[in-house]
Amino acid sequence: MNIIFIGDIVGSIGRDMIFDYVPRLRQKYEADLIIANGENAAAGRGITKRIYDDLLHAGVDVVTMGNHTWDNRDIYDFIDDAEFLVRPANFSEEAPGQGYTVVEKKGKEIAVINLHGRTFLPPHDDPFKKVDEILNEIDTPLVIVDLHAEATSEKIAMGWHLDGRASFVVGTHTHVQTADERILPGGTAYLTDAGMTGPYDEILGMKKEDVLYRFKTNLPTRFEVPKQGRAQLNGAFIQIDDETGKATHIERIRINEDQPFQFQK
Amino acid sequence: MNIIFIGDIVGSIGRDMIFDYVPRLRQKYEADLIIANGENAAAGRGITKRIYDDLLHAGVDVVTMGNHTWDNRDIYDFIDDAEFLVRPANFSEEAPGQGYTVVEKKGKEIAVINLHGRTFLPPHDDPFKKVDEILNEIDTPLVIVDLHAEATSEKIAMGWHLDGRASFVVGTHTHVQTADERILPGGTAYLTDAGMTGPYDEILGMKKEDVLYRFKTNLPTRFEVPKQGRAQLNGAFIQIDDETGKATHIERIRINEDQPFQFQK
Amino acid sequence: MNIIFIGDIVGSIGRDMIFDYVPRLRQKYEADLIIANGENAAAGRGITKRIYDDLLHAGVDVVTMGNHTWDNRDIYDFIDDAEFLVRPANFSEEAPGQGYTVVEKKGKEIAVINLHGRTFLPPHDDPFKKVDEILNEIDTPLVIVDLHAEATSEKIAMGWHLDGRASFVVGTHTHVQTADERILPGGTAYLTDAGMTGPYDEILGMKKEDVLYRFKTNLPTRFEVPKQGRAQLNGAFIQIDDETGKATHIERIRINEDQPFQFQK
Amino acid sequence: MNIIFIGDIVGSIGRDMIFDYVPRLRQKYEADLIIANGENAAAGRGITKRIYDDLLHAGVDVVTMGNHTWDNRDIYDFIDDAEFLVRPANFSEEAPGQGYTVVEKKGKEIAVINLHGRTFLPPHDDPFKKVDEILNEIDTPLVIVDLHAEATSEKIAMGWHLDGRASFVVGTHTHVQTADERILPGGTAYLTDAGMTGPYDEILGMKKEDVLYRFKTNLPTRFEVPKQGRAQLNGAFIQIDDETGKATHIERIRINEDQPFQFQK
Ligand SMILES: [Fe+2]
Ligand SMILES: [Fe+2]
Ligand SMILES: [Fe+2]
Ligand SMILES: [Fe+2]
Ligand SMILES: [Fe+2]
Ligand SMILES: [Fe+2]
Ligand SMILES: [Fe+2]
Ligand SMILES: [Fe+2]
Repeated sequence: MNIIFIGDIVGSIGRDMIFDYVPRLRQKYEADLIIANGENAAAGRGITKRIYDDLLHAGVDVVTMGNHTWDNRDIYDFIDDAEFLVRPANFSEEAPGQGYTVVEKKGKEIAVINLHGRTFLPPHDDPFKKVDEILNEIDTPLVIVDLHAEATSEKIAMGWHLDGRASFVVGTHTHVQTADERILPGGTAYLTDAGMTGPYDEILGMKKEDVLYRFKTNLPTRFEVPKQGRAQLNGAFIQIDDETGKATHIERIRINEDQPFQFQK
Repeated sequence: MNIIFIGDIVGSIGRDMIFDYVPRLRQKYEADLIIANGENAAAGRGITKRIYDDLLHAGVDVVTMGNHTWDNRDIYDFIDDAEFLVRPANFSEEAPGQGYTVVEKKGKEIAVINLHGRTFLPPHDDPFKKVDEILNEIDTPLVIVDLHAEATSEKIAMGWHLDGRASFVVGTHTHVQTADERILPGGTAYLTDAGMTGPYDEILGMKKEDVLYRFKTNLPTRFEVPKQGRAQLNGAFIQIDDETGKATHIERIRINEDQPFQFQK
Repeated sequence: MNIIFIGDIVGSIGRDMIFDYVPRLRQKYEADLIIANGENAAAGRGITKRIYDDLLHAGVDVVTMGNHTWDNRDIYDFIDDAEFLVRPANFSEEAPGQGYTVVEKKGKEIAVINLHGRTFLPPHDDPFKKVDEILNEIDTPLVIVDLHAEATSEKIAMGWHLDGRASFVVGTHTHVQTADERILPGGTAYLTDAGMTGPYDEILGMKKEDVLYRFKTNLPTRFEVPKQGRAQLNGAFIQIDDETGKATHIERIRINEDQPFQFQK
Repeated sequence: MNIIFIGDIVGSIGRDMIFDYVPRLRQKYEADLIIANGENAAAGRGITKRIYDDLLHAGVDVVTMGNHTWDNRDIYDFIDDAEFLVRPANFSEEAPGQGYTVVEKKGKEIAVINLHGRTFLPPHDDPFKKVDEILNEIDTPLVIVDLHAEATSEKIAMGWHLDGRASFVVGTHTHVQTADERILPGGTAYLTDAGMTGPYDEILGMKKEDVLYRFKTNLPTRFEVPKQGRAQLNGAFIQIDDETGKATHIERIRINEDQPFQFQK
């Protein structure tokens, strides 16, 4: 099974990268399943029904979320019907939406689980306990986990916690791709952060002048997501054994003007 | 000028990687200057005089530090005489030691500045203001900045803040190498985090069982740094123009059993 | 000199308490100077020119602020002309407004300084260093300091830091009055938090249902400040020696239905 | 039923206050039950078996804890046998010890529950959910809750959450007594923080020079708890209806040289 995971899509520049590259990535990697984090897809803050539909239409199979899940209030209207959207499973029981979904590809069931970290973040339910509960509920060894978290320690801990029990543990949220892709001894592919998909010359996808002003002055600033400028797409490609769910290959995907997309059929 | 920066050295496994690979890295990259972050060199917590001397002897030219600067009390005895050790420049005025140093290589002066981030960290002095002050003091365009910080936003902001004014802005502290190396439009090489140098199969260099226990229970645990096991070294190599200080090349260095060191003379 | 300090005014209920009680408090305590924290005066978020004028008209002599200083954008239009409004002095140099003001009462100059804490709060400039700088600038021993901060440790530390150098160190921000009023050995009156002025049956002045929902679900909620319901006013009264600035008396002021205002002429 | 709650006992000065005043307080208030927070009883950090025994011997009926529960490793040896010691109930399931205890006084069962806040603190289990579970388990309307927490919002929220379901909700941890004692409309006595019991002229019970040095320099400092100096005891007295558990009276207890203990038989 060939799987692509794409990191946090930020604003219209990010969505355009999805529209441009998802078809090409599917072809290049002969991908059976494409997952993308969409928590910043709507102008940097949350997601709308229309954007969710557009992402699916572009070829994304499952959308994961994070701390920005509820930023755009449109989500309350469609999340309970969004079969292919998952928000962190360790959100409160009162939260609408689902924490994981099971999709079928090539006659195999694949679970996609979204979790939220707690270090430097609000006190959500325990993600380690929650993922164990979910693994008890599902009935497939093909398991992809997106842990949306700040601290490298928490993400690496989740990798080891799930080693041998998940096919891929990938982090999101920091918007910077890490270079530590590997297959852990138990057969779990691991990457601390997939990186972001959106503006290339800004800070986490937001205008650099705004963010710098905040850092230099501590004065309130609205962080705008630019609509023009150079773009990047970041993610990872993994191959997993259809029977065991063990990962057999992982490589990072990084597309920008310095590292252009390359593919010869 | 060829410069190598090596990320946080953790414990004896990390130090052994320095002893083994610094000579080979110097040869492979024809390095004129080698900088390494040593804040975790002494069993994961601080540095001692002996370790500092050993690092210099192994070929490290300048040692940078971070939030663990004062963990080993030995440092109070030698820091004021340690010409090639810098601790974050935006530490308090009462802090012993120096925040930057200027070394001479190939007849050129190169400034190495250490800064500390403030997001999710203690309220040190403003690193943006502090680095501007230092740049006013020094008289060379060859400037290397190690920003020891947690948040990707703060590090990237520093990159843009110094673009065109520093040769290399590199982050440390998260112990995970990022994959976003680039040369910014103004000529500053940039990498969000250099990664760590130490145990390869643990969590940030500390025994994974200890860290996992803490995450799963919130109970107090002493994090031990193992003395045996597989190792990794992470860092970056840059080339800069001797006259202008502009970066002309950046590549990441990543050495572990999955990505072994390769060099044919 | 008789001085009254009133804690964070929250919304219209808080402003009405000011209009009702400031004249009576002035009479009861024969107050020469009345200071009030106004950071939540405009519907819980910041202050407007109109509200500032209303507070002065009601008898408030000086308004202090805090982390909510910039919440209502109206402030940018009038802060630089607002002679009797102070925002934290250790805000960035780029921040508009003033960090302290010197007013004259009974032929004496009294400095009112506003500071901001940094524990569990953004990394503003060092309030301990900043207040020392201000004390060097001013030329009167009559000094009132409002430290807007979360942590009890930071506020008590400021009390001891200024003991003998300020007439009164009072905290704001937690919206709960503390019972630790005292005169420190050097002659500085001290109170960790003055408490708030606004709704009596809510949580920090915001609707308790909203705040409870957030705590129970971690889901986003807009915190509303109610416009109806029982009210409270909290603050402190101190007496200081006009020549030395030393405090000779401190008592807490607490007005609510359980502890009604009492005064017989 | 007459109940006394005494805030965080800090070090030997705090323990001596317990030995001196608990008998006198019991007599003055004709107390049936005396509870004290002991998380800092052993030199500021945790508690030992010997100190626990001494506190019981001095007349304390139940000891509650907080974030410092595990600071002194002696506790692991006796906590599972300590019938009258409770540590926060929302600690992890792996934590030794009990989260509440039910004692009998005057033929009535009284539950004493310890909870831990999560704002500015580690991500323990949800205290709001946990206390609801405990209230379902126990079979008495006489319920005392010590919420060990930093933020005033979280403590007040717990007060309203339990109004009508607990006899007394009292906070600890900030070491500063608040002045907001009241009986909520449903019959629950409430006080945001009981304050501390220990040194009177320091910062939270630790040497003020140490704490000030940390604030002024951000350099590491060991916080010492002095063994000599003036002392204070802080707490609260409540009366509750033996049948309904509703509170009928609350008053704060504050003993120090400025507010000496007064009692005439
Ligand atoms: Fe995020
Ligand atoms: Fe994101
Ligand atoms: Fe480190
Ligand atoms: Fe560090
Ligand atoms: Fe505030
Ligand atoms: Fe406030
Ligand atoms: Fe305590
Ligand atoms: Fe505590």
